Order: sequence, then C-alpha cells, then structure tokens
Amino acid sequence: MHRHRSSLGDLLHHIHVSGALSRAALAERMGVNRSTILAWTAELAGAGLVREEHPAGTTGAGRPSLVVVPESSRVWVLAFDVAVDRLVAARVGLGGRVLERREAARPRAGVDLDMVVRKLAELGRELVDPGSLCVGVGASYCGMIRPGDGMVRYGPEMGWVDQAFGAELSRALGIGLPVAVGNEAHLGAMAEYQRGAGVGVPDLIYLHGDVGVGGGILVGGKLLGGESGYGCEVGHMLVNPVDGRSCLCGSRGCLEAETGEYALLDAAGHDPGEFGRDAVRAVVREAADGDRVAAAAVAEIGDWLGIGVANLINLFNPGAVIFGGTLREVYAAVAPQVADRIAHHAMPVSRERAKLRVSALADDATLIGAADLGFAALLADPLEAASTRTTADLTVG
Amino acid sequence: MHRHRSSLGDLLHHIHVSGALSRAALAERMGVNRSTILAWTAELAGAGLVREEHPAGTTGAGRPSLVVVPESSRVWVLAFDVAVDRLVAARVGLGGRVLERREAARPRAGVDLDMVVRKLAELGRELVDPGSLCVGVGASYCGMIRPGDGMVRYGPEMGWVDQAFGAELSRALGIGLPVAVGNEAHLGAMAEYQRGAGVGVPDLIYLHGDVGVGGGILVGGKLLGGESGYGCEVGHMLVNPVDGRSCLCGSRGCLEAETGEYALLDAAGHDPGEFGRDAVRAVVREAADGDRVAAAAVAEIGDWLGIGVANLINLFNPGAVIFGGTLREVYAAVAPQVADRIAHHAMPVSRERAKLRVSALADDATLIGAADLGFAALLADPLEAASTRTTADLTVG
Repeated sequence: MHRHRSSLGDLLHHIHVSGALSRAALAERMGVNRSTILAWTAELAGAGLVREEHPAGTTGAGRPSLVVVPESSRVWVLAFDVAVDRLVAARVGLGGRVLERREAARPRAGVDLDMVVRKLAELGRELVDPGSLCVGVGASYCGMIRPGDGMVRYGPEMGWVDQAFGAELSRALGIGLPVAVGNEAHLGAMAEYQRGAGVGVPDLIYLHGDVGVGGGILVGGKLLGGESGYGCEVGHMLVNPVDGRSCLCGSRGCLEAETGEYALLDAAGHDPGEFGRDAVRAVVREAADGDRVAAAAVAEIGDWLGIGVANLINLFNPGAVIFGGTLREVYAAVAPQVADRIAHHAMPVSRERAKLRVSALADDATLIGAADLGFAALLADPLEAASTRTTADLTVG
Repeated sequence: MHRHRSSLGDLLHHIHVSGALSRAALAERMGVNRSTILAWTAELAGAGLVREEHPAGTTGAGRPSLVVVPESSRVWVLAFDVAVDRLVAARVGLGGRVLERREAARPRAGVDLDMVVRKLAELGRELVDPGSLCVGVGASYCGMIRPGDGMVRYGPEMGWVDQAFGAELSRALGIGLPVAVGNEAHLGAMAEYQRGAGVGVPDLIYLHGDVGVGGGILVGGKLLGGESGYGCEVGHMLVNPVDGRSCLCGSRGCLEAETGEYALLDAAGHDPGEFGRDAVRAVVREAADGDRVAAAAVAEIGDWLGIGVANLINLFNPGAVIFGGTLREVYAAVAPQVADRIAHHAMPVSRERAKLRVSALADDATLIGAADLGFAALLADPLEAASTRTTADLTVG
C-alpha cells in the first residue's frame, strides 16, 4: 500500500515538474509498463489531480497520443514570500504555475511578526478559490528557519529571534492548513534544481541577493542541512577580516556585508534611505551607463563576490553556481571580477566543472520554492491528501 | 542473491567496525532474528572471515554467550600513507587493527612518482604474509585524487600533476591487486566517523594538518564529493585577501598558507630547513614552555584557523569539527583563539551544535582510512572476495 502511494506520488511529481507527459514518457521515466501508467493515471484522474488530453496545437488524423497534464487551476497551494521590500502571496497551481498573485510593499523598519502575518493572511485570503482544492501552504522567509515548525530562529534584517512565524500565519489564515516555512535561498536552490537553471545538476550552489546574501547548497540533489538544518549560511562567511564592513549579524567582513545591498548602495554614494531591488538595479544601470562611482562600487562588490564564489567552488566542487534575487543583475555586471577571482583562487580541477548561471525563475524562484513546500504532502500521498482536503475547508473565517 | 551478499557484507561490516559482537547484538543491530545471524555467521566463518569465541577474560559457568570476532590476523589489507615527512606501509587486519608496519623517512624535495612507488612497494612486500589472505590494497595521498583510478590530479607539496599513482603502485607491488587511493583528509574523516572521534556524527568536518591543511567533510554520513570528487578543499579557502602568505597553489592567503606548517615555522623564526610533524610539535612545545616568539606564532595561526572553522560552521552546521594530523597539537594550543573567532563569526544556532574535538586515531587516522578503502570489496561481497583471493596470489614476483 505504501509502495503504491509512493508510486502515485512519483508519477504526480513527474507531471508537477515537467508538465504534460505522454504515458510512454512516464513509463520510460518510471521504469514500468504503459498499462501500469494507465491504471495509476486513472486513479489520479479520479481524484481530480490530473487529466489526459491531446497535446496543445494538435488536431485531426495522425495526432500524437494523449498526454497527462496536471489539474493546475483546480489543485493549488498558497505560497508566500517575505522579501526585503515586499510581501507576496500567490495561488500556485499543480505544475508550478502562478495562477494569481497579490503583492504589498513592505516598510524596512517596524515589521514585527503581527504586522507581517496580518498582511500576508489578508493577501492570501483574497486568493482563495472556493470551488477548487487547496492542498497546502508554503512560505519563504529571509532568515534561519527551524526545520519542522516554521519557527524563525534568526531574521537579522527584521531583528526577529525565535518568532513562531509558521504557526501564527497558519492561525491568521484560518483555512485549517499548516504553513511550511523555508529559508528563501534554500527554497530558491530547490526551485532552480527542479525547474530552473539547475535542472540535472545535483551538486549546485544558489546565491540569493536580497538585503544580504543567502545560500542554498545542494549536495547530491539534497539540500545541505547539517546537524540541525542551519547549514548553507554563505552570507556570513568571513571574507574580509582586516577592514570589513559591519554586518547585521554583529560581525564585520561577512560576504553579505561586502556584497549585499547596503555595501553596494553605500559604495555608490546612494542615499541611505533607498533600499530594495529597485535601488540595487539602479546602481547596476548607472554603472553600465558609464557612471564612474557606480562602476567602481559594482567592481568592488564583484571582487568580494568572486572571493566567496571561489571559496565555495573549492569546498563543494559544484556543477553550477546560480545567482538569484538581486545578484542576477549584480552578477551580470561583475562577471569579469568573479571570473578573475575564480581563476586565482579555485582549484583547476574544480573550477573547470562549475558553470556560472543566473536564475531562470528570476524573482519567482523563492515563491515557487515555497509553493513546492506546500505541495510536498500531496506528492507524498496524492489520494490521501486529495481526499482530506475539501472545498468546504476553504470557507474563510 | 544480491540481497544475501549485501546482508553478509553488512554483518561483516558491523564486526569490522565494532570488533567482537554477540549474535544477539548483531540480531538487534541488523533487525533480523538470531537464527538468521547464526546462518550468516556460519557462512562467513566457513570462508575464514570470522570465528566465534568466548569473550576475552571469561571462564567457567555462567559465562556470556559466544561473540563473533573478525579473523584479523588471517584476513588483511595492505595500507599505505604518503605523508609529508614519511612513507608508511602497514598490514591491517579485518577489524582495523594494525598488525605490522614499516616506515621510511621521506625527503621533502625530489620525490617523483618512481621514487615514491618503489619505496612503498618495497615496504609493502616486506609485510606480505603468504599463509593468509590479502583482500585489498588502499593508499592515502596528500593531494587531489581522481575517483576511480587513483590518479593524482594535483599534489602541490610534491609538485605532482596527473601522476598515475594508484596504477603504478599496483604494478610495482605485483600481487595482482589494484590499489584504491584516497585523499588523506577524506580518508581521515571516514576513519574518525567509523571508529574515532566522529562515531555517531554523520555531519562532521575533519581538518588534517600536514604541510598544508586538508579537509574531509561528511554530509549525512557521506563524503562530500561534489560534481567530480574534488570537494572539501578547505585548505584553499581564501581567508586573508589583504596581505596573505603565499601558498603552494600559487595563490596567497589560503587557509593552509596562514595555518600550515610553513606559516607556523616561519612565524616562530625557525630554520626554513626544518619540516615535518616534529618541527611543528617543537614550536607548540616552546610556546607552552613560555617562549614568546613561539607563543605569538601559535596564536597567530590559531586566529586564522578560527576564521576557517567559523566559516565552515556557518556553511555546514556540523555536529563536530575534528582536528587531526599536526592540527591535533596545534588545536590544543590555540583552542582559545578558535573559540573566540567562532563566538564572533559563527551563527549561534549552528555553533551551539558543533563540538570541537581532536582526532582519536591520531597519526593513524589516514592509514586506517586507507585500509578501509582496501576492505571495501570484501565488505561489498564477502564470499566472492574471499574466494577470489588465494594465498598463491601473494607470491611476490
């Protein structure tokens, strides 16, 4: 029975990640025969999770065989993203498609747990679609999250320590579902591996630029958790021990202190009141337009970023390093500095294998990662999860 | 059939790592009943790999039940260790006991492949015991090793690039067995995890002091290999980008340049002609005896080592950091500096879980790790490996 659940979950996972697949393709990927796929697909279709249809754009005679597609608009999760300059909520359908979204600008200061939870719950409730099936809730947060219960152990940017974010958001939403919470860079790494710039690269490093720099590191396709789930803290790697900039963590010279938003805006002489991805992108644009102060600031950040990346290549021998969040634009501007540091400091046998890429999922990488947390229960046991949840649960209180 | 081989291998592995175990203890560990253990033990005993005996020191009535013990003196591997100041060969019995060893001092300069292979083979052949069963050969080398064929991709201390060490040593030995080669710190990490200071700690970092600093990092009980097996290069993490000491790798300011043997001896004003573990230990002793120059040198090295360890704690959230090789003595002398850097730079949620320990296997950690490489084939399929090898193969040509 357990084995059967897991087979249905595997099939649904293939559809969730790859979209439409023919029965033949599924049979090959899963190593079973087509009649087994037929039976499993029928079970999943009976539960309203997938349907079979002719591939888009095909008609008439000789058209290819049916494909299995996810019931994206009927089966969905709520996904939340707590980023530095905004709060995002989305309804994300099975298959990873963002069906609808709400965003709110976020003040930098004075963001306590109540305020964040209240606003997210308000955005989330607007997205609930009573005629369909909500199978989970996931959230991405820019801090260190305790595995299992969504407790924010440490969120330096907001000054949060031990805040019960997951539990409180679940309570405020009031739709009878727990909220699975993950660190933004961890989720970004998983999302890029599943359906972004890291597909097929089980050993990869995802660096997420935000106010700081977060890291999500996959080792053999699994997130590096460590002893208690707090690994991957790339941003607090000390890279400048001599005259480092001060860091939100209380130390100086951390990678994120030298390459994060504050460092870039400060080095570029921008107003300290500016912040967020638009401010970072403005500096990168000014540098590209020939502004010498901005160009020097960008180059300085690139040099420190290159040191961090070279160290990570030596430690992890990754197949790819993926730059996400605001590091997408920053990396595009500082690729020469990063390449130079890698050439000087990374071992040849390791650097020859590390492809440097920008995030394919762009600003949605963390949100899609959060959605996948929400889908985890469904993919573990599709029929059980689909039957437990009913639209009646979604009557918003 | 495959499942049975793997069960026999598991049983033998328990005996190999833990030594004598009763059938009851084996039954509990393996989750099978005692009569199954009885049958499997009989098969392994029939192949001459284990025997049953009364626990040592017990006689007469009421003595405890029989224990299964490895046939250590009859079943063994050759293990080699290429270290900075010596070449070591040992006959290591099943169970991990060093039965007999040979060592040769090693000059620092002029050590080409031929010289090393010839000397190791000479030492190794002296250890061959024709009346018993040699089941494998393993070697530890202080450099980057290509997985699978024992090719030294990069051995900066000897100036080796792409040297076919494993193949050449196998040929020179002439006993019809391939030589499995591993990086010294990788092997030390595995050995400490199996039977040393890291037992029960699947996420651990082993730092090996030699002329440089090697790293072996276990993630979930597995060595961090990365995309092509060259991960864990802790020694070339750039920690001092501003005025770093030059490193054998061609860069400056690497962790091993700041904390390795050269840095310590130079900072302590020792004769550049001195080298090896005795020279390092002499500086540590002088510092303990109140020599101010030596004490300052040791403290400086400790400060850089602390930065490296703090960075690793942030990245890996390890359950333990184990100091081996010459870092055993160095760490004992610089624990305050290391603790101070960890307190300043490592995230509290991670540093609270990282126990700092010195290697339990001491100077034999890498050698025991090499022996375990040699035992791998036997543990994968005990009966096959035991029957293939015969004492006739061991007629040294």
